[in-house]
Amino acid sequence: MNMRILAALAALTLPFPLIAQQSPAHDPAALQQKALGDNTAYGIVEDLTTEIGPRLAGTEREAAARAWAVTRLKAMGFANVRIEPFDMKTWVRGIETAEVTGPYSGKMHISALGNSASTGEKGLEAEVVYFRTLADLGAAPAGSLKGKIAFVSHKMTKTQNGASYGQFGGVRRIGPSLASEKGAAAIIIRSVGTDYHRNPHTGGTSFGEKGVPIPAAALSIPDAENLERMIARASKKGEAVRMKLVLTPRQIGTTQSGNVIAEVPGSDPAAGMILIGGHLDSWDLGTGAIDDGAGVAISAAAAKMIMDAGTPKRTIRVVWWGAEEVGIFGGRAYAEKHGAAGHALAMESDFGADRIWQVDFRLPEGTDDLQTRIANALAPLGVGRGRDVAGGGPDHGPIVALGVNAIDLQQDGTDYFDLHHTPDDTLDKIDPKAMQQNVAAWVTVLGIVANDPADLLPKAKVAE
Amino acid sequence: MNMRILAALAALTLPFPLIAQQSPAHDPAALQQKALGDNTAYGIVEDLTTEIGPRLAGTEREAAARAWAVTRLKAMGFANVRIEPFDMKTWVRGIETAEVTGPYSGKMHISALGNSASTGEKGLEAEVVYFRTLADLGAAPAGSLKGKIAFVSHKMTKTQNGASYGQFGGVRRIGPSLASEKGAAAIIIRSVGTDYHRNPHTGGTSFGEKGVPIPAAALSIPDAENLERMIARASKKGEAVRMKLVLTPRQIGTTQSGNVIAEVPGSDPAAGMILIGGHLDSWDLGTGAIDDGAGVAISAAAAKMIMDAGTPKRTIRVVWWGAEEVGIFGGRAYAEKHGAAGHALAMESDFGADRIWQVDFRLPEGTDDLQTRIANALAPLGVGRGRDVAGGGPDHGPIVALGVNAIDLQQDGTDYFDLHHTPDDTLDKIDPKAMQQNVAAWVTVLGIVANDPADLLPKAKVAE
Ligand SMILES: [Zn+2]
Ligand SMILES: [Zn+2]
Ligand SMILES: [Zn+2]
Ligand SMILES: [Zn+2]
Repeated sequence: MNMRILAALAALTLPFPLIAQQSPAHDPAALQQKALGDNTAYGIVEDLTTEIGPRLAGTEREAAARAWAVTRLKAMGFANVRIEPFDMKTWVRGIETAEVTGPYSGKMHISALGNSASTGEKGLEAEVVYFRTLADLGAAPAGSLKGKIAFVSHKMTKTQNGASYGQFGGVRRIGPSLASEKGAAAIIIRSVGTDYHRNPHTGGTSFGEKGVPIPAAALSIPDAENLERMIARASKKGEAVRMKLVLTPRQIGTTQSGNVIAEVPGSDPAAGMILIGGHLDSWDLGTGAIDDGAGVAISAAAAKMIMDAGTPKRTIRVVWWGAEEVGIFGGRAYAEKHGAAGHALAMESDFGADRIWQVDFRLPEGTDDLQTRIANALAPLGVGRGRDVAGGGPDHGPIVALGVNAIDLQQDGTDYFDLHHTPDDTLDKIDPKAMQQNVAAWVTVLGIVANDPADLLPKAKVAE
Repeated sequence: MNMRILAALAALTLPFPLIAQQSPAHDPAALQQKALGDNTAYGIVEDLTTEIGPRLAGTEREAAARAWAVTRLKAMGFANVRIEPFDMKTWVRGIETAEVTGPYSGKMHISALGNSASTGEKGLEAEVVYFRTLADLGAAPAGSLKGKIAFVSHKMTKTQNGASYGQFGGVRRIGPSLASEKGAAAIIIRSVGTDYHRNPHTGGTSFGEKGVPIPAAALSIPDAENLERMIARASKKGEAVRMKLVLTPRQIGTTQSGNVIAEVPGSDPAAGMILIGGHLDSWDLGTGAIDDGAGVAISAAAAKMIMDAGTPKRTIRVVWWGAEEVGIFGGRAYAEKHGAAGHALAMESDFGADRIWQVDFRLPEGTDDLQTRIANALAPLGVGRGRDVAGGGPDHGPIVALGVNAIDLQQDGTDYFDLHHTPDDTLDKIDPKAMQQNVAAWVTVLGIVANDPADLLPKAKVAE
């Protein structure tokens, strides 16, 4: 074996890239050290949750959050701070109570799902029909639920990467429209969550363009399990459990939402910008700390740290997205307005505030060296390299679909669905040390990609 | 040193009693083995929380629980099952909402304390005055709170033996009457608890005979901490936080409660009975699983196991107490009616459903051997011998004060105040294995004491 072959083989497996192209101003080790002692991100989410609190998409509270965000981002020193408004159809919560009326009794903790219809103030009392899974509901004969309340249960498991949300989230996303099709008067589901607190998990559902919205709500998990026990006991006696539901949410028509944009101008605009952020709107039950105060905080704190260290080659555009929870309206409006052109990379933080454990890529061919450099620079933070294709985060889905590159810094989601969309999504759930580790990982990736010479501009996509 | 002295010294420290007086039917090791594989206790608390649910003292739900209890205790085979009724003054919960109205905003999770006055349906909006501790509230000048809402915070710690409830529970027990004396329009407290969920901890308070009840309620701990942050920020700007409270509880006058009694008749009534139990009433927010469904279940399951093994020498009287939460009305009524005479021992289970870790005694002189035998028999269950004087449990306080002996099987209270008096006190919080360990400890003590020849009858007390 001659030396050239040996060298080529070594290069194939060598974890150390041969050429380091790092800007000294954005040295990963130095940035990480700074980030691990910096509380900027925690300060942002503390301010947002204390001074603004819940900020449901399309409401006055989301508008208040945007005004707060503009002030805050300007004070941090970002350039070109502005709001890009868009219109949306807005749903708001009303009264919500649930009570078993026979043969047992008891008030249950319940919350309407986004787009739920109203029962009217007098409510609705009906027999509860139990389905062990979404598939069981799907198998119910047409018309068999007429005048009844469908109750769909399931048993969501904890997963580090959040994959179980795909499977079990279906109960919330399509269960209501299925129940409506089969004539149900209303549907209640076991919360899509993994905790055991009396806190229902809300979240959006959809009845489609032609579907008929029905009252749809989530029971807390202890309540769902108690209802299952009641149904099992009643059915042994040949009886049905009856429940009274009062849910008075309503659609309030078209209102305004918007994306808040801020920038760290780069020295080479032609190299394309890096789009980062999180969503500013939140569900209305908690104060939106982990979903997604943490994400707006982490992304902006990381961008500020890059800016303070020196001008990067690529522009970093921070977007605090509007109306993510109710249909990714902000991400869609942005993609429609801006298209993919000029975007080198998209990265979002929207999976809580726990430690980052894995990095995944969606980068063009020929960037193996760049990917290896990033993975190696993240390793001291306990971040491994994953095998998934990065998605870029929910708000970046529309622009990534147009051909923009993405990197995902995956947060540990093991406990995320204990809190997700519940009243318990509050500041105290954030570990400041874990948040610092997030920012350290973000500055690492930004510091490398923002200065990398690779051509990352999106190529014109062939229409499919 | 001669042999007699040596033997005497050895006896002083010997952990093995020289004479074993155990009835073969109630052999501790055999009873423990049976208890560790038995689900009777879990079945009782499952039935009670599913079929009855919350059972606030003096209400129809507590009456339903008594009727259920009579049926259940008869079905278990106990003798002399009956209700001893008593009258009480009853308080019931109404609407309860809290909202910050300036300079920030947000709905907070709140629950009225027992005996709270009403704000009226229109509610009360006022400035919030912050006190870091109960002592700070106590130091406020008379009249300084006129027209304001007092907010008392504190930082309760977790303790295995529950001792912190003594210190921090004072905020709930006497904070409201203190605030009333100082002219406050209402009082809100940080929940007396150790969790971080949006679940307020209710519980009784008292304004005394001459005090003027004011609206009094507990904020969930995340809400209390957010309110503290809001107050700190507002005060930097020279502003006060304002809050709107709507609390509509009411006193509904005199209603009936009662104690449910069941017995395992002993072969020697003159030896005095062993009084055991837990309280059947619960707060209304949860389903009363750990407080105190667990206690009624553990005590009754243990008594049944003794009964099934053979007739004990002493009668075991199981009492499922009424109206403990609101002032130990059941325990007081019983002591008044029955006095101490004929009671050899009192034991209650009312501190959750976690494992028993310690045994404490209040037994007459000359029972060292009995105490050592009990402690040794409990050791295989991981139970150590404590240095406290047993209290006998809240419902037995009145009769223990009259001279009745007591043994406390101390449950681990480390996590008890995460759940205590919250909506989260539900069946899922009970570990069936821990509950079996409780029953195993109870049958051990009952099996020994119920057959012991010691004179345990209360001595006539000299009036003090
Ligand atoms: Zn989110
Ligand atoms: Zn979300
Ligand atoms: Zn209790
Ligand atoms: Zn209690």
